[in-house]
Amino acid sequence: MAAVCTIVHHRAVTAPSQRHGDPARVEPTAPPHAIDRLAERFAQVRARSAALAAPLSAEDAMVQSMPDASPAKWHLAHTTWFFEQFVLGTVPGTRPLHPEWAYLFNSYYQGVGPMHARPKRGLLSRPALEAVLAWREAVDARLQRALHHGALEPALLDVLELGLHHEQQHQELLLTDILHALWCNPLQPAYCDDLPTPVSDASALQWQHYDEAMVEIGAPPWPAREAAFAYDNESPRHRVLCQAFAIAQRPVSNAEFRAFIEDGGYRQPALWLSDGWALREQEDWQHPLYWDAGLDHAFTLAGLRPLDPHAPVCQLSLYEADAFARWAGARLPTETEWERAAGDATPSAHDNFVESGLLQPRGRAGTGMRQLLGDVWEWTASAYLPYPGYRPWPGTLGEYNGKFMSGQCVLRGGSCASPRSHLRASYRNFFPPSARWQFAGLRLAKDAT
Amino acid sequence: MAAVCTIVHHRAVTAPSQRHGDPARVEPTAPPHAIDRLAERFAQVRARSAALAAPLSAEDAMVQSMPDASPAKWHLAHTTWFFEQFVLGTVPGTRPLHPEWAYLFNSYYQGVGPMHARPKRGLLSRPALEAVLAWREAVDARLQRALHHGALEPALLDVLELGLHHEQQHQELLLTDILHALWCNPLQPAYCDDLPTPVSDASALQWQHYDEAMVEIGAPPWPAREAAFAYDNESPRHRVLCQAFAIAQRPVSNAEFRAFIEDGGYRQPALWLSDGWALREQEDWQHPLYWDAGLDHAFTLAGLRPLDPHAPVCQLSLYEADAFARWAGARLPTETEWERAAGDATPSAHDNFVESGLLQPRGRAGTGMRQLLGDVWEWTASAYLPYPGYRPWPGTLGEYNGKFMSGQCVLRGGSCASPRSHLRASYRNFFPPSARWQFAGLRLAKDAT
Amino acid sequence: MAAVCTIVHHRAVTAPSQRHGDPARVEPTAPPHAIDRLAERFAQVRARSAALAAPLSAEDAMVQSMPDASPAKWHLAHTTWFFEQFVLGTVPGTRPLHPEWAYLFNSYYQGVGPMHARPKRGLLSRPALEAVLAWREAVDARLQRALHHGALEPALLDVLELGLHHEQQHQELLLTDILHALWCNPLQPAYCDDLPTPVSDASALQWQHYDEAMVEIGAPPWPAREAAFAYDNESPRHRVLCQAFAIAQRPVSNAEFRAFIEDGGYRQPALWLSDGWALREQEDWQHPLYWDAGLDHAFTLAGLRPLDPHAPVCQLSLYEADAFARWAGARLPTETEWERAAGDATPSAHDNFVESGLLQPRGRAGTGMRQLLGDVWEWTASAYLPYPGYRPWPGTLGEYNGKFMSGQCVLRGGSCASPRSHLRASYRNFFPPSARWQFAGLRLAKDAT
Amino acid sequence: MAAVCTIVHHRAVTAPSQRHGDPARVEPTAPPHAIDRLAERFAQVRARSAALAAPLSAEDAMVQSMPDASPAKWHLAHTTWFFEQFVLGTVPGTRPLHPEWAYLFNSYYQGVGPMHARPKRGLLSRPALEAVLAWREAVDARLQRALHHGALEPALLDVLELGLHHEQQHQELLLTDILHALWCNPLQPAYCDDLPTPVSDASALQWQHYDEAMVEIGAPPWPAREAAFAYDNESPRHRVLCQAFAIAQRPVSNAEFRAFIEDGGYRQPALWLSDGWALREQEDWQHPLYWDAGLDHAFTLAGLRPLDPHAPVCQLSLYEADAFARWAGARLPTETEWERAAGDATPSAHDNFVESGLLQPRGRAGTGMRQLLGDVWEWTASAYLPYPGYRPWPGTLGEYNGKFMSGQCVLRGGSCASPRSHLRASYRNFFPPSARWQFAGLRLAKDAT
Repeated sequence: MAAVCTIVHHRAVTAPSQRHGDPARVEPTAPPHAIDRLAERFAQVRARSAALAAPLSAEDAMVQSMPDASPAKWHLAHTTWFFEQFVLGTVPGTRPLHPEWAYLFNSYYQGVGPMHARPKRGLLSRPALEAVLAWREAVDARLQRALHHGALEPALLDVLELGLHHEQQHQELLLTDILHALWCNPLQPAYCDDLPTPVSDASALQWQHYDEAMVEIGAPPWPAREAAFAYDNESPRHRVLCQAFAIAQRPVSNAEFRAFIEDGGYRQPALWLSDGWALREQEDWQHPLYWDAGLDHAFTLAGLRPLDPHAPVCQLSLYEADAFARWAGARLPTETEWERAAGDATPSAHDNFVESGLLQPRGRAGTGMRQLLGDVWEWTASAYLPYPGYRPWPGTLGEYNGKFMSGQCVLRGGSCASPRSHLRASYRNFFPPSARWQFAGLRLAKDAT
Repeated sequence: MAAVCTIVHHRAVTAPSQRHGDPARVEPTAPPHAIDRLAERFAQVRARSAALAAPLSAEDAMVQSMPDASPAKWHLAHTTWFFEQFVLGTVPGTRPLHPEWAYLFNSYYQGVGPMHARPKRGLLSRPALEAVLAWREAVDARLQRALHHGALEPALLDVLELGLHHEQQHQELLLTDILHALWCNPLQPAYCDDLPTPVSDASALQWQHYDEAMVEIGAPPWPAREAAFAYDNESPRHRVLCQAFAIAQRPVSNAEFRAFIEDGGYRQPALWLSDGWALREQEDWQHPLYWDAGLDHAFTLAGLRPLDPHAPVCQLSLYEADAFARWAGARLPTETEWERAAGDATPSAHDNFVESGLLQPRGRAGTGMRQLLGDVWEWTASAYLPYPGYRPWPGTLGEYNGKFMSGQCVLRGGSCASPRSHLRASYRNFFPPSARWQFAGLRLAKDAT
Repeated sequence: MAAVCTIVHHRAVTAPSQRHGDPARVEPTAPPHAIDRLAERFAQVRARSAALAAPLSAEDAMVQSMPDASPAKWHLAHTTWFFEQFVLGTVPGTRPLHPEWAYLFNSYYQGVGPMHARPKRGLLSRPALEAVLAWREAVDARLQRALHHGALEPALLDVLELGLHHEQQHQELLLTDILHALWCNPLQPAYCDDLPTPVSDASALQWQHYDEAMVEIGAPPWPAREAAFAYDNESPRHRVLCQAFAIAQRPVSNAEFRAFIEDGGYRQPALWLSDGWALREQEDWQHPLYWDAGLDHAFTLAGLRPLDPHAPVCQLSLYEADAFARWAGARLPTETEWERAAGDATPSAHDNFVESGLLQPRGRAGTGMRQLLGDVWEWTASAYLPYPGYRPWPGTLGEYNGKFMSGQCVLRGGSCASPRSHLRASYRNFFPPSARWQFAGLRLAKDAT
Repeated sequence: MAAVCTIVHHRAVTAPSQRHGDPARVEPTAPPHAIDRLAERFAQVRARSAALAAPLSAEDAMVQSMPDASPAKWHLAHTTWFFEQFVLGTVPGTRPLHPEWAYLFNSYYQGVGPMHARPKRGLLSRPALEAVLAWREAVDARLQRALHHGALEPALLDVLELGLHHEQQHQELLLTDILHALWCNPLQPAYCDDLPTPVSDASALQWQHYDEAMVEIGAPPWPAREAAFAYDNESPRHRVLCQAFAIAQRPVSNAEFRAFIEDGGYRQPALWLSDGWALREQEDWQHPLYWDAGLDHAFTLAGLRPLDPHAPVCQLSLYEADAFARWAGARLPTETEWERAAGDATPSAHDNFVESGLLQPRGRAGTGMRQLLGDVWEWTASAYLPYPGYRPWPGTLGEYNGKFMSGQCVLRGGSCASPRSHLRASYRNFFPPSARWQFAGLRLAKDAT
């Protein structure tokens, strides 16, 4: 039933213009300077979104299986609206192509107008997926034109850069949301039938020890001169006293999590945070969201697959991650500890990001800190709060991150559904502690003894 | 955006086989006896469902805008399941084409197995609309073959007949459900942009007077020899003492209902049933569901249109209909009164059914009882309860009507979305008193004075 | 812990004035004419309410265990408000003693002003029970004075009469609501520890047969000259064609209902109305509300007691009653059938009303129609709808009954918690089909064969 | 209606035994060593709970106006259960006086057994308040006997000490919960009519500046030798790098908060955290919980009183506090900043605690850090999370604090309803950000510039 999906990882690096043969847009004759690199990156990122949606029918792309998730079509449209609203919208003489769609595809930017109720995104049969894709191409063409004609002042180039990172976030959500949507269908169709099965293995857990130290975490504020892109919530870079601790060299595996379950982990309130236990009882959690009752299969983007014992466990809420850690006599690391342990790690081709085309976590034996970036997001013990001296971006884009700084927890590292160029060691992802549908697992930590 | 929809009323009488050129199925050489007539009627009814769905994209056909409504695709699939389950399913040697779909498309027949949760019908992106339509054709072909080969014993021919009436019910629901779905979209797209505007006029209300009499209502039990088709809930035909009363010659019009609103009808609790007033307050009803705040436009299957003052008011809950009647110094008729007034009325080509292609009610001036059948369902003062001596059909099909005999009210007459051959004067439609999304209005009645 | 409660049945017939030695109020020198009889009856009814509340602490009298139930204190206050609002309130020169309490104790009379939200009645620690009781006495004294001084015009005497029947209704609710409240307390305290255990027996079910006939049911409109008191919803008396039927001579017993349970009655959807089955599943009903899981004890006003096999089953919803009847191959009677079978039955000292002091149903062997009045209310197959020609009382008191004529079912006969003088064969009680906390059972009926 | 309440502050320091004349318990002949001091403190703390409940009727003491709040009776009983369960329960030969009450009055200690559902605490009319008070006295007597007979081993003396702090927490909750309960009553009765009106004044806001420093916060683990009492969540004492900041010398006043409202603070989403704005819209917040619509009166434990412009604003959620701070161009302090600013502050007789008998916050003019302890709890920017190296107490008492470390925010300082001896600068109170019914306000902070 599902389409042949090799396009997911191949097509993803192909700009849409190449698919449609518009040479003017594809191969600017200008020398490869900053604008050109930005234009190329724009084309690539935008193309990947479409490629990720390509295995989906228009019907698939419309499912909203819970208020927290959005339809794939909505992701495609919202990211386009972002460029039209915040980049093209401020270019003199440019009017939106579909002004009446702004209401539909504004997510939460109160500063630019009212918006469609989030839980009702799945009711939008119109505009059709076709129309949204056409809109994407039209907006892309306008943006490329504006770029190449120098119509975007430097500040807008920054917003364009932000828009690309924004779109990459939605690429991951598109995958996690469609996974949930398909899981809700009793037929349990695969997003993609022919995903490769990862070659997976694992080493025994080893503790990496760190002494007390004053460490520096975070990123310099962007967009200042010379600063690499980072979200406002990663800045300012600042010093923190980090006490001595130990951290596992790799995330917790499915096999380890299964041992927790078999030891009654889901039946012992003493292991759980109070809110977590209440939720567990109310929703009768017995195992990670997509596992089957026999604890030996899990639903993946490739459909139901045997559980890989070596792969990092995922689709955990913070509550489950925290209960596991307590059961294991350990705890979650703070984000300071995590970032210290990550050191100067940068995403590499060996890490398991969306580009690997696996679309599921994979175990990787070995010693030394590993799998920090990619595979699974790692819940930390840290609440999602502003860093000392934090300033949201000015204007409406200040709503991007700052207003969510209550009730959420920080995750670090990135997942098998994250684009590689989207990640860095200072990246702060955040979700409510109850969220179970992400590629989210954990890495153990403990106090120094 | 909406398709040109003339097919709605033209294509509807064309069998699908003709569209696909399968002569074996289309033009049986057998003489036009009972089986042939049934086969032809089967082809026509099935074709109309597809025709009604034709203006919809696969995305439109998937929207479920509230738990009470179903996606168009679901209607197309469920009616097909009905034939596969209850007719083909009992033919030796026949196995369902998609056994795993039974769970998805069983509505409420506990006797044949469990079913998908009703509020989650909108999550079913798979099977695709295409696949459902292909299934429809395959089941139709099987059924036609079975019919023509004499493989269906007489009792199954009766179930087939029932299945056609069942499908006609869902044709109306397909229209009322998609109207609600499209209304929920802020873009308010039309089901069909080019629906004709009815020529509408109205006469002043006239009371028709009836003396006390012993009357006979209901229909003989079907399928007994020589009985025309009727649902089990219409039988047995029985005598009722009907007291003297008067009844309006026509339904209440939009202009009359607007006067009620302008007189503060939605602000006076004394006019309302207690449950109705509580709901009105909770959901802040100010006018019929699809009217705009200015009381001069209403959302229709043709999109937003000026309100036709002469046309019967529709999309009322029982509570609104009842409050209007009280405001008017009148009341709703009982179903006995209604059926007595309807007398031997039969659906005719002058009545406004789905075949008229208007898909909205229309005013029709004149004297004498009129517009009893078609235009709008008419709420009655009668609860939906069994007639004296009522027996549900035996077996699982006994779940069709009988188990809903609590908490609902009877509506009579049929609407502009009902197929003409589906209706008769004894027909008992039923909905909860809170239901607002049907083509449901009212006709006034009063006690004799 | 519970008080010695013999006062319930003894004190109940003693006027409160006698308890407090106010001879002026107790023994009017006037001859025993109509006013005196009304005054005496007023004193008796009012005294019984206080007596029924006497076993309760101020704390008990404040519990509201669900939105449908009210605290005992609220019942005591609301019935007093009724007299102050509708009788004393229209006497010139009389001002309410506590005008600010009207908001608290108006139940649902929109015509006289706004009201406290029903689900929040249990939050009213003030006024204190003491204060409410004092108010009762003050209002009683005012009313007695007004009566004896001829200050009440005839229409107000009618409202006073209505107020007494109103208060009797609340006496029954006080008992059923406190039973629910105490049952919700894990300590399961008794309302009254020393209630006698009924001597109970039962005869085998016998069918009483009735031929088709034109019958007359209902009561003449009150307050017309010479009409006995009846609620507006019982009138007008009118003719109905009643088809031949049979009806059981007694209600269904606990033993019979237990057989239904043991035969899987709560596990077979085919026996249930659709709404009932959905509710049963949602709330996991396994037996009548107050039965224990072993099916051999039930919680009563005397605390947990062994289930009496002969006594009529009670605390059923309509759904359970209806499912039992279907299991038994029978059905519920219509209210016409019930009233016809009741004939000219009048409440007698042999019937089990609140005056018996048992406060639970009791089996009574014998032949011939029996236990029609008292013991348990009997669910009928009839929706609570207006009789032909029904007119609500004029003015605000028209809200008493008429506005509830949707979504409810009729019960007939009265219960062990009903005051005897409150009942008659034409009495129409009504509750939603989901209501489980009343002394409500059933009597089987069936079509003539 | 409300009692004369001078007992609140006078009786509070009188041991109950003195009220009942049991000299054996009151004046132990032993010299005033540690046991005696503990016994005396036990008597005082326990007496204050009863004194705080004294103005309440048994009915008042039963109200539960929302699931988050508990009835006063429940507080009285739960604190008693704590001693019976955790102190007396482990003394050999001691059996609980009312074993069946453990289920009712266990709050959340899963380790010692199941418990009554929190939202249903208001349904417990039994045991009566009288019975609970008698139980309190009986348990107190047992405990005093055990103390004086040396029956409690040292570890149990620690639990006893903990039990006193536990009871003091509930004393504050008893006041905030009853305030909410009385506010819910449309009569708006006072807890105590004759509370004095505070003499209140205020100085202009002044910023106190702090340079970057390594600071030490928290308390040493108790019960280690020589450690003063502190909850487990305050330990370990640890170093934190604290960046330069400024903090206001006093909390925000009612007058300042009113200016925020009048400037449209409740209408500008840009000022609010996303979750807070959603809640504000859903519940239509327009001002602090107990203010009237005119912004010039507020409901207090003394009933409705004119708003004191100088007094610290209270009954704020974190969301409102945070929005105010953003409007003021400032932010909330972190708990590190707050504790650093508090320095070695200790509760003094000049601070406004429950002992002042005001039971509402009061403004106090002056320079220098002030009103840190008492008046109002101050929301901080810190999530309630474990300190580095945190270890919950062993055993069931480990459930006291640790399992709530998700979804809550830290408040510091104590309020006008806190007992003085309960507080210290390292104290960490915590509530969900949505909680509005506490004496919770804020103090502004800002980054150094």
